[in-house]
Amino acid sequence: MRGIKRRYNDLAGTNLDRLAGISDGIFAVAMTLLVLGLSVPTISSRSTDADLWQALLRLGPSVLIYIMSFMTLGIFWVGQGTQLSRLVRSNRNYAWLQLGFLFAVTLAPFSTAVLARFPTLRVALVEYWLNIVLAGGMLLASAEYGLRAQLFHEGESPELARLFRGRILIAQSLYAFATALCLVFPTWVSITLIVLVQLNYVLAPRIPFLHRF
Amino acid sequence: MRGIKRRYNDLAGTNLDRLAGISDGIFAVAMTLLVLGLSVPTISSRSTDADLWQALLRLGPSVLIYIMSFMTLGIFWVGQGTQLSRLVRSNRNYAWLQLGFLFAVTLAPFSTAVLARFPTLRVALVEYWLNIVLAGGMLLASAEYGLRAQLFHEGESPELARLFRGRILIAQSLYAFATALCLVFPTWVSITLIVLVQLNYVLAPRIPFLHRF
Amino acid sequence: MRGIKRRYNDLAGTNLDRLAGISDGIFAVAMTLLVLGLSVPTISSRSTDADLWQALLRLGPSVLIYIMSFMTLGIFWVGQGTQLSRLVRSNRNYAWLQLGFLFAVTLAPFSTAVLARFPTLRVALVEYWLNIVLAGGMLLASAEYGLRAQLFHEGESPELARLFRGRILIAQSLYAFATALCLVFPTWVSITLIVLVQLNYVLAPRIPFLHRF
Amino acid sequence: MRGIKRRYNDLAGTNLDRLAGISDGIFAVAMTLLVLGLSVPTISSRSTDADLWQALLRLGPSVLIYIMSFMTLGIFWVGQGTQLSRLVRSNRNYAWLQLGFLFAVTLAPFSTAVLARFPTLRVALVEYWLNIVLAGGMLLASAEYGLRAQLFHEGESPELARLFRGRILIAQSLYAFATALCLVFPTWVSITLIVLVQLNYVLAPRIPFLHRF
Repeated sequence: MRGIKRRYNDLAGTNLDRLAGISDGIFAVAMTLLVLGLSVPTISSRSTDADLWQALLRLGPSVLIYIMSFMTLGIFWVGQGTQLSRLVRSNRNYAWLQLGFLFAVTLAPFSTAVLARFPTLRVALVEYWLNIVLAGGMLLASAEYGLRAQLFHEGESPELARLFRGRILIAQSLYAFATALCLVFPTWVSITLIVLVQLNYVLAPRIPFLHRF
Repeated sequence: MRGIKRRYNDLAGTNLDRLAGISDGIFAVAMTLLVLGLSVPTISSRSTDADLWQALLRLGPSVLIYIMSFMTLGIFWVGQGTQLSRLVRSNRNYAWLQLGFLFAVTLAPFSTAVLARFPTLRVALVEYWLNIVLAGGMLLASAEYGLRAQLFHEGESPELARLFRGRILIAQSLYAFATALCLVFPTWVSITLIVLVQLNYVLAPRIPFLHRF
Repeated sequence: MRGIKRRYNDLAGTNLDRLAGISDGIFAVAMTLLVLGLSVPTISSRSTDADLWQALLRLGPSVLIYIMSFMTLGIFWVGQGTQLSRLVRSNRNYAWLQLGFLFAVTLAPFSTAVLARFPTLRVALVEYWLNIVLAGGMLLASAEYGLRAQLFHEGESPELARLFRGRILIAQSLYAFATALCLVFPTWVSITLIVLVQLNYVLAPRIPFLHRF
Repeated sequence: MRGIKRRYNDLAGTNLDRLAGISDGIFAVAMTLLVLGLSVPTISSRSTDADLWQALLRLGPSVLIYIMSFMTLGIFWVGQGTQLSRLVRSNRNYAWLQLGFLFAVTLAPFSTAVLARFPTLRVALVEYWLNIVLAGGMLLASAEYGLRAQLFHEGESPELARLFRGRILIAQSLYAFATALCLVFPTWVSITLIVLVQLNYVLAPRIPFLHRF
């Protein structure tokens, strides 16, 4: 090793523990900030129980959207963890692809707040979906790069390629289909369908087609 | 291992370090944001020492509620840490049950802020209590699943089952009893009793009945 | 071990990695939120360079107070890390004393914001100092408990007792003295002296008396 | 070791894991708060798709500046990780130099928000650049101190000295040049050039001069 003249970039981004550390940190902050978007009812402090009950009920749709976003981030956290846990090494290119993925994660509180404020507008839904596409795209790009750069166990690579691609492409197809429905139906149809897709990934019932991978 | 065709879900959620990492992150953010709910007195910047003193005193009840929530989160952090420290492995179902628990943790700054703003309303107290129920329920569900899926040391499982169930069910019974008192007494009675229950778990005096487990 | 009937509290709070994890998280959030207290100048977006320059200059005193608080938290982070690094085990009582210490850390953004808004009021200075006293007191209580409960290396304990007590008591005496000066002098004298005390601990010049420990 | 009388400062700041932990935490919070600076459009909730689209488009320049800051922090995160990964030990002086670096990181959300609000003012650009200078300067100071105090592998030190100095000095020269252009050209020229410099470090194309180190 000492004989070869190394460059700065040969040393950078090789620490998998640091990558896991900043990932857990960014997911933790983003997930907690999501719920912070729920504003405490601003009714008068002389209100009655009935007033507060009504005010909390009005938060219902927002709560649904925040749960949806928590599931979105949870799914991506599990997915990223699965990918990182199969790595045997990292390098600076891989680290930057993961930082791009984490950038999409940091956008989630913003795009969630936009959708929670304008749940009936298609632009808000599409903006939310683009966030999911960015996160999924960067995660797939990381996997593809990792496969090409031989960052995974050599013997395991063909199997991982099949599993990672299958999982991300099917999930993204379902999200895209659900979002596209807003061209025909009200946005709540799309939102409900996205939640159902997510519940499928959270609960993992044994549906042959969806869980082939 | 290479001979068996694995599915994506067999690889997902198996990393205990990542689970500990995101848990510490979410608890850290939620605990720090709690206190952030204390708003700096908005009295004029030409105020005197006496004005500021009065303004800080008025924050007293809110401070009590924030200390209560910090203890709530601390108790759940210790409880989750105890459970995770006995695991020998994890899987995706367990990881998602823990994410459900962490979702309850992220709700704490919101439900605390509601109670701090409307401490005399029973709806606020019940909303706060439901947050505790959700957290305790998810933690118990994780333990039960972990026991059934043999994620704990085999020899230790019967003992852990007794300890985890005893601890969570007794604590939740006490919280439920304290909250139910609001049907008869003002909410401050319930809040005081919840704080006493928490102090019991924080200070752990040797009371035979409460610490059988 | 299997022959003895263990209680829940025998298993709780024993994981030093989790304690380090939540500590780093809480310090990280508190330190970042400090600076967030600096509000972006709200001058009109049609302002000139000179307007913005003036507005940034007016933030000067606040910036000084934020730097002071960052140093306060940094000193406590180094101090806690030093204590934790000498532990050979932990238990639930120690974990709760540390959570009490971390509670004081979460208060720092609030007490800093109060002092930054009312830097000339003695009540604000005393409130800030009480936060430092709480943090230092909990850290000392952790050390004393750890020494009594034999959580440190046995052979190292007498030396650690001398070092931990000496460091915390001298530092707290200096903070108390600096704060007490506000009874006679304007608060800026106290604030300047606190900053000098902190610089002493950050830069660690070789002053015989202050660094006997 | 037992025979020598140690001082408190000999024990402090020696834990590299804690340093990595608080660094990942601070970077995670700062990176997530950056994007939080994007305020959800405050248009009426009865707005149409076209209104929201216009409002999101108006956020365009801010989004560019937030991406720039995410890249800034990402570059510094990779750089700090590279430096820490070559350490074989740490001490309290090194820990404090790193805390100074992390202080610069916590300033990023503030200086980004100022630049996003006043992107055409040179004072805002210079304030942003000073933040980059502070971060780069502290990182270089850490490296220089680490080399002098023999915290790196002895055999590797000369090579690391060349790589760290080369990387930081060239990058800082480019940032300084880009910022200085605001004396002659509108600030957008500088901002665009800074983004190009950053893309160079993120994408790492094989440009001989810039990547000699």
